[in-house]
Amino acid sequence: MNTFGKKLTLTTFGESHGKALGCILDGVPAGLKIDEAFIQSELDRRKPGKSKLETGRKEADKVEILSGTFEGVSTGTPIAMIIFNTNQKSKDYENVKDLFRPGHADFTYFHKYGLRDYRGGGRSSARETAARVAGGAIAKLMLKELGVSIQSGLCEVDGIKGSVQDFEYAKNSKMYALDPAKEAAQEAAILAAKENHDSVGGVVLTTATGVPIGLGEPLYYKLDAILAEAMMGINAAKAVEIGDGVASTHLKGSENNDEITLNGFTSNHSGGMLGGISNGDTIVVKTHFKPTPSIFQEQQTITTHNEEVKCNLKGRHDPCVAIRGAVVCEAMMALTLADMTLLNMGKKMDHLTAIYQA
Amino acid sequence: MNTFGKKLTLTTFGESHGKALGCILDGVPAGLKIDEAFIQSELDRRKPGKSKLETGRKEADKVEILSGTFEGVSTGTPIAMIIFNTNQKSKDYENVKDLFRPGHADFTYFHKYGLRDYRGGGRSSARETAARVAGGAIAKLMLKELGVSIQSGLCEVDGIKGSVQDFEYAKNSKMYALDPAKEAAQEAAILAAKENHDSVGGVVLTTATGVPIGLGEPLYYKLDAILAEAMMGINAAKAVEIGDGVASTHLKGSENNDEITLNGFTSNHSGGMLGGISNGDTIVVKTHFKPTPSIFQEQQTITTHNEEVKCNLKGRHDPCVAIRGAVVCEAMMALTLADMTLLNMGKKMDHLTAIYQA
Amino acid sequence: MNTFGKKLTLTTFGESHGKALGCILDGVPAGLKIDEAFIQSELDRRKPGKSKLETGRKEADKVEILSGTFEGVSTGTPIAMIIFNTNQKSKDYENVKDLFRPGHADFTYFHKYGLRDYRGGGRSSARETAARVAGGAIAKLMLKELGVSIQSGLCEVDGIKGSVQDFEYAKNSKMYALDPAKEAAQEAAILAAKENHDSVGGVVLTTATGVPIGLGEPLYYKLDAILAEAMMGINAAKAVEIGDGVASTHLKGSENNDEITLNGFTSNHSGGMLGGISNGDTIVVKTHFKPTPSIFQEQQTITTHNEEVKCNLKGRHDPCVAIRGAVVCEAMMALTLADMTLLNMGKKMDHLTAIYQA
Amino acid sequence: MNTFGKKLTLTTFGESHGKALGCILDGVPAGLKIDEAFIQSELDRRKPGKSKLETGRKEADKVEILSGTFEGVSTGTPIAMIIFNTNQKSKDYENVKDLFRPGHADFTYFHKYGLRDYRGGGRSSARETAARVAGGAIAKLMLKELGVSIQSGLCEVDGIKGSVQDFEYAKNSKMYALDPAKEAAQEAAILAAKENHDSVGGVVLTTATGVPIGLGEPLYYKLDAILAEAMMGINAAKAVEIGDGVASTHLKGSENNDEITLNGFTSNHSGGMLGGISNGDTIVVKTHFKPTPSIFQEQQTITTHNEEVKCNLKGRHDPCVAIRGAVVCEAMMALTLADMTLLNMGKKMDHLTAIYQA
Repeated sequence: MNTFGKKLTLTTFGESHGKALGCILDGVPAGLKIDEAFIQSELDRRKPGKSKLETGRKEADKVEILSGTFEGVSTGTPIAMIIFNTNQKSKDYENVKDLFRPGHADFTYFHKYGLRDYRGGGRSSARETAARVAGGAIAKLMLKELGVSIQSGLCEVDGIKGSVQDFEYAKNSKMYALDPAKEAAQEAAILAAKENHDSVGGVVLTTATGVPIGLGEPLYYKLDAILAEAMMGINAAKAVEIGDGVASTHLKGSENNDEITLNGFTSNHSGGMLGGISNGDTIVVKTHFKPTPSIFQEQQTITTHNEEVKCNLKGRHDPCVAIRGAVVCEAMMALTLADMTLLNMGKKMDHLTAIYQA
Repeated sequence: MNTFGKKLTLTTFGESHGKALGCILDGVPAGLKIDEAFIQSELDRRKPGKSKLETGRKEADKVEILSGTFEGVSTGTPIAMIIFNTNQKSKDYENVKDLFRPGHADFTYFHKYGLRDYRGGGRSSARETAARVAGGAIAKLMLKELGVSIQSGLCEVDGIKGSVQDFEYAKNSKMYALDPAKEAAQEAAILAAKENHDSVGGVVLTTATGVPIGLGEPLYYKLDAILAEAMMGINAAKAVEIGDGVASTHLKGSENNDEITLNGFTSNHSGGMLGGISNGDTIVVKTHFKPTPSIFQEQQTITTHNEEVKCNLKGRHDPCVAIRGAVVCEAMMALTLADMTLLNMGKKMDHLTAIYQA
Repeated sequence: MNTFGKKLTLTTFGESHGKALGCILDGVPAGLKIDEAFIQSELDRRKPGKSKLETGRKEADKVEILSGTFEGVSTGTPIAMIIFNTNQKSKDYENVKDLFRPGHADFTYFHKYGLRDYRGGGRSSARETAARVAGGAIAKLMLKELGVSIQSGLCEVDGIKGSVQDFEYAKNSKMYALDPAKEAAQEAAILAAKENHDSVGGVVLTTATGVPIGLGEPLYYKLDAILAEAMMGINAAKAVEIGDGVASTHLKGSENNDEITLNGFTSNHSGGMLGGISNGDTIVVKTHFKPTPSIFQEQQTITTHNEEVKCNLKGRHDPCVAIRGAVVCEAMMALTLADMTLLNMGKKMDHLTAIYQA
Repeated sequence: MNTFGKKLTLTTFGESHGKALGCILDGVPAGLKIDEAFIQSELDRRKPGKSKLETGRKEADKVEILSGTFEGVSTGTPIAMIIFNTNQKSKDYENVKDLFRPGHADFTYFHKYGLRDYRGGGRSSARETAARVAGGAIAKLMLKELGVSIQSGLCEVDGIKGSVQDFEYAKNSKMYALDPAKEAAQEAAILAAKENHDSVGGVVLTTATGVPIGLGEPLYYKLDAILAEAMMGINAAKAVEIGDGVASTHLKGSENNDEITLNGFTSNHSGGMLGGISNGDTIVVKTHFKPTPSIFQEQQTITTHNEEVKCNLKGRHDPCVAIRGAVVCEAMMALTLADMTLLNMGKKMDHLTAIYQA
């Protein structure tokens, strides 16, 4: 239940204020060069405290590989990675240990498990996504060998939509903004909310290019379904669109169908898949993030002892979780595509002949 | 890969124009009264040809239980169900056997598998969803015993949005319309598209009430993530929203958080879950369906031999797949919640004591 | 829980006296010629009533493919197969409906599920193994394309051990005897037990040749571990040995190690695997079957209402289940090796390059 | 593929000479008191270097819990445990880096993955079983709450069989001998082999008492089948017997059936299960371990470059792996039973009512 994927599996562990968090990535093919600097650079993109748009918690997020590689190359055995927590301020949470923060998982964890680690959200904290990014980085390395590349950025913040998708620009934007012309307004909206002890939502666009035709397993492990699961499973995600998504429901069939020529599809309304299987075109996914539930305004709630109280949060929080969410979306895209790439092996008798009679 | 669920698993088989389709539902607790008339009534709701809003293919969709029950009660062993196909018109597909219908899975199936059953879309046909509805009906019977009920309906067709959610009305509407005041306009849009050899999209709202707190397994089998997978995996689905979904990204945190009182949550922006776990409030999911790809206008495509050709479809098709999709959404909601209900057993030591020391 | 395998999955359904039994085999690569006559011939080898060494129940065991093939070739979609029951004599079981037959699963099914289908053992009947043989036949077809062949036979009956392993002879022996010189004595032991209303045990040797190096997934899906699971899961199996098995514990390391030369291993104590991975040598597995629990002598037991009673069975039963068990062992060997063959795809980066850059 | 179990899952990582090894145990119910001293004591029982009957490698095997507990109690989130390696002597393996040690997994890992971590056997080393013991210790804590206890010991060494099964004695025996009268002879056999640079095999008996009726999931996750998988998957295991096992094949049905009275079964030939489901009697499993393949006599082998060479091992090895294997058998028994205990939840509608309407 803490494992994502079928043939490339990511199993994560760790709480926000525990000793460490990490993951075991199992199923990485042997013989992949493991570029540790790249993995660290991916974690650096996600790590908190890089700008005032993010939580003030400063974590080095230094990742260490414990197993599964030998002389810089994957051996086919499980790759364990660990990140020690260093900057916990558990005292910030003493005042919420007996109450349920609105919009948080406190209420449901408490009732599901009968107790909870209240420090920083425990397991439900987005801090866990560091482990996903570590695993996703290795998935990216694997996909890169096959010519697949993944990128993401914010296409909307607090209702301010971008119209341009400049992934190169986004890479160097501190808020991963896709539309340079809208970045200032989007940033202002975030800072205004922060100033007001409030938070805003945002939308992440994630794409993958160079994806081979045939990824996705019908009928209950379709590429679109699993991308939806992967993205919706990220903290604060509330909606997922594939290709034109919501907008496609406003088109006629004659407008929405992507016609086919010898040069490929004439459009990409579908977002790069048909029948839940990749069609060779660019994979396009949008993930909608709600505003951060941790706000610094007084809110109504109840305690674990069934008393109504006012909730006043301390702690350090992102005013817009979609920003760092963009890095996590890339990781989940990478993990999904890498898993699907492995699952697709052996779908034709030709595959078996190619491998076993080589 | 043709299996949905972890502890209550639905494995389906069958092609649109094969001998039969069906499923094995495994994990149903023993001692559940299996109401066969109810299962059949659910299939009747989904079956084609009930009105001119649907495909003209007429299938009795008579379901037969082959195993797993004894004297009308589940025994805990796998329940196999079968539906024989009776009204195939495979000849309608002779002219598309060598070409890829735009918007369909023909292209991707052919490339993934190297060959395809071209008759009626073969396995990729929405006809397979009859098996989901059969399985979902048993899941509903199980959930009903626990006080959970599920309903659905169309909240939008061709961009025409309803503002009322009258599930009782929807039950008797031939297009499962939720807003009586919008039904006529929505129906007109469908018929206009049909007249024009075209198709339209629609949006299905699915809800579940009476859901116990605690369903959903963090972190990679969350209730929201699996509902997203379940819904996105339905033929023609392109977007899934949980609770306020897309709209929640336009709210501030202070607006979007559901505050808590001793009487429960003061609002339900979250759609009945927090941290991917049910919070006891109504589960709310929207599924967006693209317009049916099968249209009767000429379209550009290529053949399996790499020639550009014009595609002119014959056959019988729904002008708006969202209608019958509503019934499938209910089935997937039921299967997901029933699976989560079983998975949640044993999450506290108290559970084990209750069962093993009873 | 009624599914075997990970990438090639067999899910079975059906009870001994229900309408039908069958299976869904999912994961068969597309493009495999499906020889239906061969599948039927495998079922014929397992079917009851072929000689007086077997139960008198006569079932045609006619198998029908419902899906997953097109024009005689697998399409990559799930292959459903069904066998209708025709010769149930449920009346034979009326007298045991309230009591637990010694040595049978009656007692445990009743307590696990709270009720049971008492007719012929219901789901726990070895009749279910017909579905395994059907699935195993397709696995054999797939393996045959890769040069793998599987054979089995009885190497021991009622303590009478054979010393010769003549698989060709076994094929035509009505009791699948491996040692022609011992067959008469073994047959006499079976018939003597039958005469005495009793039953005997036996041991099945199953081997596979032509197996590629590398099958088996460390550390918890090793080839030996999964073969042990596969064989021990067959009705009445009580012990499984790999290679020299029990005898290897009596050797010194210097005797038991298989040394390696450029011509291969100098011996095969290991039974064709090292570290749970196939080493290219012959796979050797022994499965020990207890004597059939259904005997016609009076036995002590209790009822579902907690009364002590005498149990006197009617019905038709094999005096030595190991005989037909041999055919099931082959099926389980085939399913295991075919699954492992698919799982092994993508273990090296070279595999991915071979498939995706072809 | 490095994960054991379905609802209680143990995923392990680590190589013999890597930085660390460890595991993630997922699915532990919340509210279980986690006795760290007990976990360490279990590791101490398995750790090497306690006597001259074992390898001279000295590892503290100090286990650290990284996540999943809060204030000494399980929270329902994944429990990660880590053991750092401290006493690697990788130089001992320089001379075998290019050759395949007979009886070891070197040959198969190299061919499966195209490369291998040759230091101490890498992932295939029995050192990984420390992680199993850590996970098994928590499983034992969970089972203890339900009244289940597990014990093991050596019932045979080098062909010298014990006739007494004194588990209390075994606990304090440095070789976990079950029969005090045979211990001296068994020890002498081990030391004689060691003196002769050779090794011996042995047989471990593992039992569980207090097991509730109903554990084991038919038909492909039976208790006996999964115990067979669990035990056969331990390094060097070559045969597994349930109950009377091999001996039961020499009995008549009338002798082998366990008759039933109101006081329980009159015998336990079955080893505590019927139809693959626990019957409430003692679970009895025997695991046969081959002699350690690491011996210090010259052996014939080939290199990775296909040259025939003589192999002369250095390093530190157990002369009888069955000794420490006994501790691992207990761990695998505990993990299997705990998983089955959780899986059995929800098998009757009564279970659901008990939990959800409490």
